Amino acid sequence: MSGNTFGTLFAVTNFGESHGPAIGCVIDGCPPGMELSEADIQPDLDRRRPGTSRHVTQRQEEDKVEILSGVYEGKTTGTPICLLIRNTDQRSKDYAAVAQAFRPGHADYAYLQKYGLRDPRGGGRSSARLTAPMVAAGAVARKWLHARHGIQFRGCMQQLGEIAIPFESWDHVPRNAFFAPIADVSHLETYMDALRKAGDSCGARIRVTATNVPPGLGEPLYDKLDADIAWAMMGINAVKGVEIGAGFASVGQRGTTHGDSLTPQGFATNNAGGVLGGISTGQDLEISIAIKPTSSILSPRDSIDVQGQPAQVVTKGRHDPCVGIRATPIAEAMLALVVMDHVLRHRAQNADVQPPLQPIPASLP
Amino acid sequence: MSGNTFGTLFAVTNFGESHGPAIGCVIDGCPPGMELSEADIQPDLDRRRPGTSRHVTQRQEEDKVEILSGVYEGKTTGTPICLLIRNTDQRSKDYAAVAQAFRPGHADYAYLQKYGLRDPRGGGRSSARLTAPMVAAGAVARKWLHARHGIQFRGCMQQLGEIAIPFESWDHVPRNAFFAPIADVSHLETYMDALRKAGDSCGARIRVTATNVPPGLGEPLYDKLDADIAWAMMGINAVKGVEIGAGFASVGQRGTTHGDSLTPQGFATNNAGGVLGGISTGQDLEISIAIKPTSSILSPRDSIDVQGQPAQVVTKGRHDPCVGIRATPIAEAMLALVVMDHVLRHRAQNADVQPPLQPIPASLP
Amino acid sequence: MSGNTFGTLFAVTNFGESHGPAIGCVIDGCPPGMELSEADIQPDLDRRRPGTSRHVTQRQEEDKVEILSGVYEGKTTGTPICLLIRNTDQRSKDYAAVAQAFRPGHADYAYLQKYGLRDPRGGGRSSARLTAPMVAAGAVARKWLHARHGIQFRGCMQQLGEIAIPFESWDHVPRNAFFAPIADVSHLETYMDALRKAGDSCGARIRVTATNVPPGLGEPLYDKLDADIAWAMMGINAVKGVEIGAGFASVGQRGTTHGDSLTPQGFATNNAGGVLGGISTGQDLEISIAIKPTSSILSPRDSIDVQGQPAQVVTKGRHDPCVGIRATPIAEAMLALVVMDHVLRHRAQNADVQPPLQPIPASLP
Amino acid sequence: MSGNTFGTLFAVTNFGESHGPAIGCVIDGCPPGMELSEADIQPDLDRRRPGTSRHVTQRQEEDKVEILSGVYEGKTTGTPICLLIRNTDQRSKDYAAVAQAFRPGHADYAYLQKYGLRDPRGGGRSSARLTAPMVAAGAVARKWLHARHGIQFRGCMQQLGEIAIPFESWDHVPRNAFFAPIADVSHLETYMDALRKAGDSCGARIRVTATNVPPGLGEPLYDKLDADIAWAMMGINAVKGVEIGAGFASVGQRGTTHGDSLTPQGFATNNAGGVLGGISTGQDLEISIAIKPTSSILSPRDSIDVQGQPAQVVTKGRHDPCVGIRATPIAEAMLALVVMDHVLRHRAQNADVQPPLQPIPASLP
Repeated sequence: MSGNTFGTLFAVTNFGESHGPAIGCVIDGCPPGMELSEADIQPDLDRRRPGTSRHVTQRQEEDKVEILSGVYEGKTTGTPICLLIRNTDQRSKDYAAVAQAFRPGHADYAYLQKYGLRDPRGGGRSSARLTAPMVAAGAVARKWLHARHGIQFRGCMQQLGEIAIPFESWDHVPRNAFFAPIADVSHLETYMDALRKAGDSCGARIRVTATNVPPGLGEPLYDKLDADIAWAMMGINAVKGVEIGAGFASVGQRGTTHGDSLTPQGFATNNAGGVLGGISTGQDLEISIAIKPTSSILSPRDSIDVQGQPAQVVTKGRHDPCVGIRATPIAEAMLALVVMDHVLRHRAQNADVQPPLQPIPASLP
Repeated sequence: MSGNTFGTLFAVTNFGESHGPAIGCVIDGCPPGMELSEADIQPDLDRRRPGTSRHVTQRQEEDKVEILSGVYEGKTTGTPICLLIRNTDQRSKDYAAVAQAFRPGHADYAYLQKYGLRDPRGGGRSSARLTAPMVAAGAVARKWLHARHGIQFRGCMQQLGEIAIPFESWDHVPRNAFFAPIADVSHLETYMDALRKAGDSCGARIRVTATNVPPGLGEPLYDKLDADIAWAMMGINAVKGVEIGAGFASVGQRGTTHGDSLTPQGFATNNAGGVLGGISTGQDLEISIAIKPTSSILSPRDSIDVQGQPAQVVTKGRHDPCVGIRATPIAEAMLALVVMDHVLRHRAQNADVQPPLQPIPASLP
Repeated sequence: MSGNTFGTLFAVTNFGESHGPAIGCVIDGCPPGMELSEADIQPDLDRRRPGTSRHVTQRQEEDKVEILSGVYEGKTTGTPICLLIRNTDQRSKDYAAVAQAFRPGHADYAYLQKYGLRDPRGGGRSSARLTAPMVAAGAVARKWLHARHGIQFRGCMQQLGEIAIPFESWDHVPRNAFFAPIADVSHLETYMDALRKAGDSCGARIRVTATNVPPGLGEPLYDKLDADIAWAMMGINAVKGVEIGAGFASVGQRGTTHGDSLTPQGFATNNAGGVLGGISTGQDLEISIAIKPTSSILSPRDSIDVQGQPAQVVTKGRHDPCVGIRATPIAEAMLALVVMDHVLRHRAQNADVQPPLQPIPASLP
Repeated sequence: MSGNTFGTLFAVTNFGESHGPAIGCVIDGCPPGMELSEADIQPDLDRRRPGTSRHVTQRQEEDKVEILSGVYEGKTTGTPICLLIRNTDQRSKDYAAVAQAFRPGHADYAYLQKYGLRDPRGGGRSSARLTAPMVAAGAVARKWLHARHGIQFRGCMQQLGEIAIPFESWDHVPRNAFFAPIADVSHLETYMDALRKAGDSCGARIRVTATNVPPGLGEPLYDKLDADIAWAMMGINAVKGVEIGAGFASVGQRGTTHGDSLTPQGFATNNAGGVLGGISTGQDLEISIAIKPTSSILSPRDSIDVQGQPAQVVTKGRHDPCVGIRATPIAEAMLALVVMDHVLRHRAQNADVQPPLQPIPASLP
């Protein structure tokens, strides 16, 4: 209710602050009997880890995860899985200036108005560092969903600042610092180097997908699958827009082209992005999100201080000049958590259902 | 949990089908002591009512609301408010063909896969008719939010199919069938007449705003105000995209321009759309949504039948050629319900908080 | 959150007041494909209906239930089932005196303190009349649980005021007005007649059981099956105590006698009442509840009025001299709703579990 | 949903196993701005700590709590408070026998049926050790409730096995190992020594109260204050019965005596136990619970093994011969958590309510 638990049947409760002793989460609702160790989780954490290229924050965190509960003799027991990540590289003194004024575009002011006090060290609770436990929880969900349903989650960058990035191949994604689906990212590197030098930041657009999603996931009226995806995505730090399938392009489409034809061999197109009436169709889930430019920048900005007087704010500390760069594994994890929750919800009510019709393939061969 | 309750502290449970005897909702959590009668609710219902112009479905429903509980001597008692709307103009025979095949772009197929059976009459539970109880519940929230906080919700059309609609004035919105903020809508009427004649449909883009929203609403990590708004908006039938503030345009912005400067006289701009770190800032909430073209159209479409064989589908019955036309009052109501819930949530935890700083105005004078 | 929804996956939202136009509930989460009509529900409602003997309230309500949604062609669709019961025999003028003062032992005072206003007609929302929609919802759960698992719910009276009632046979229960498991209830009738004549009321003790409950229901730490049963039972109007299995007698037992021995042929005893560690064992659920005497009585009581001044209160209107008499079908329904919810919850997380050991019988042959 | 979160607005998510590396909880919803350190929590943990007398388990755990998040510069921030307690004195080898058979009266069998596997070390998740994090969370709630409302929670033992314990004074409670409100506990010590020597165990009855509870707490229909208390109490390990106020004695009372008279000077009696219609009246909350004898005993018991064959079970390891002895601080904490949640819930909906009548005192002077 206070907004730190994600999901209902696969419920992840997140805790910690950027510069506190530790961050982590408790997963409640993981099915029992699945083999699980830290080695299943660490690779996903490593994908979003800071300090791995010059284009992201230089904070050095190992992000080493420890399983504190819920696993016995290498298997999940069905009881809560607590995942703990110790913070190790805090530099809280960088935030003395930020504690006295509000960064434009940052949560500083909103937190103070809500709580009457705030933890300014590294953004405290509002830090994107809190996505690490979600990536860890997502890894658990991904393992189960892949083992049981063959579901796979992938993401990539579609746009960096003004630069559109064409889709070439998923194979390129793990081979560059940007999660870009292209072979040559040198122009992206040049762009980022200039931006960093200018003390500025930029936005990004990220695509995330899921394949082999069974039809029937999602509740019809409010906890629609696409609504829950939108909630999860908009809840990622700095996200300002979410599209499913054709998204905003569907405004200019006609009904005769937008509706995806069904054939015995599969869906002919995927304007739906895998969801109709809030329920999965078996098509791939296709989501695109907009990430705003980082608000913590070296360029001075006009603002007010904690006494309400005009002030200029320069943000020191170590920050991502484009938070979108590390957003891909986060968006994948969030999508996995939504799908996981809906798989469990679906079978609660519909475990006995035998649809009279076999699902058709996700797309034409 | 099965997706028919909206909200947590101001919880609206929706029931009914398009062609069943009645639709309605139960509001649980309305503060006691507010004057309330059907007359407070009916005007909002009338704004979304079908059959009011030639550009929307010709189904004739009075959408007359009856308060069944929760009000005593004209005042809310704090107990559940049941709102009932009887269906009166069903023509279920129109759906015989639809019962045998799946409309491309419609929930038909997904419902069958989920539940093993479906109610094809008017789309059953997947019908946009189920937004009527939400508009009714929204009217209750709007009354309370206006009386207590002066919050006001407004919406308008920004785009109809390929036609962008500039913003001229809120005054025009109630004076045309499109909720368009322009004086002359004759080109929109010509466009819709042609579309209807062609047996086709189109999408729309809708803007919805809230003013006088107090700062501090929204939970920081998952039930962020913008995340819950995205959830509510994506949950409206046919919505495929949601933006807050600058939305997808923020991808191409720099940090030096995106972050809204704070001044003692107010925020200088509103790229944030009223939310930072998931928490309201006091700026106006600014949301934009994409609505896909109606899937129930007269033009024949390729699909499969309930035996999985190829089939052509033509949708008879009465349908909106652009569901976006009636979406404005729905989006306003959904936004009001989200804000209402967060006002109650906020004071549960933070009723005692005295922020050390007075809120600054929403915008420069 | 505001306390009018019962259950999580089989969620029943209750609305209405004793003297409002209607009472009812919305069931969200009923599995699809079950045959359901009003005829499945009415018999249970008739068992708790008022006016059926001289020992209960003389208010005449048909309690005729109408299914407003969620059923198509005689089968549940998986969407919300709204059940409506119109109130027909209100006599609100009887409550003029009660509106001016607080009945000792009644919710009057607590409601006023909570909400600042109250509906005094028939107790408004605090009336036991609101158990009717729960009995209706319980009938839906019972039908599903019986069809799918063979689970059966039964209850009977164990004590009426000072009179202990021995258990003779379930067969007697439907044959008398008291749900007493004895052949001859004349002494109970004499007792009640004297009590009514004296303008007084008495308490009762009710036993409720479930048989054929599969093992594994209940969550281990907080939503334990017995905890949820206690919650459901204590939530019935006028209940002041709940026991599972040996209950308070277990305080004086030794470990060597309390723990029920397991044998390949079944459990040897049932001190557990069917629950160990919060999880069902397959033994019968055995619950006993204490119901206090009715607070609305003709004998004058010392109290205060709404100005806080001393006052004498006499309750006119029509009331049950022992609310416990009609509590048996209510307690059965509440137990059924708890079990239903846990069956659905269990399979969400554990649908794939194959216990290495076949369940043993509930009891020795 | 999987039963490891307690509460809704003051939500405590519990994790860990008896012999895992750590146990703990995450509190979500604590109001911001309250001074909090480990020193506020440790004293309550010390009251329930094992190994403090010869009458309880000899496991030596310091139960030292560490605050991992949610506190900044000594004050709560309104974000999740993670409390961690490392396990230090596990002796898992004691459980080799228990892993092969089911203890009568223990959760062993139910867990295996539910999850298909179980952690036998110290009872795993079913261990009463998991009440430690609840006592820690309760300490946080108690501090806030006392600071803001002056609410005080107290408990004591009322019966040990067959021995009834009269109430003499709260002052005696902290001065003996039994939380007994009597000066001389030598007969209790003799009783326990004999029981331990016999390899047997016994039950207990515990009373728990709250004073200065404001009227108006509790939701009317299902989340009644007394229902939630019953849920919390029945959820404590080994509890088999719960009473509020007069409890089971109310069955034999008449309406003319049970209903507590109201006077301008206060309530005349407290048969209600502080709750009417599910809502607090301002009277003291009065609860009594029945705790069954420990199932882990040295005396051999008839049971079956994991192959379903007859077996005798003797429980080694270190166990409380009467779990009721340490239950008093646990029951106090659970009551505090229920009250805390309802205080927050109440003000969400009713923060603006001004009752027309000042509350009357809890009892006559």
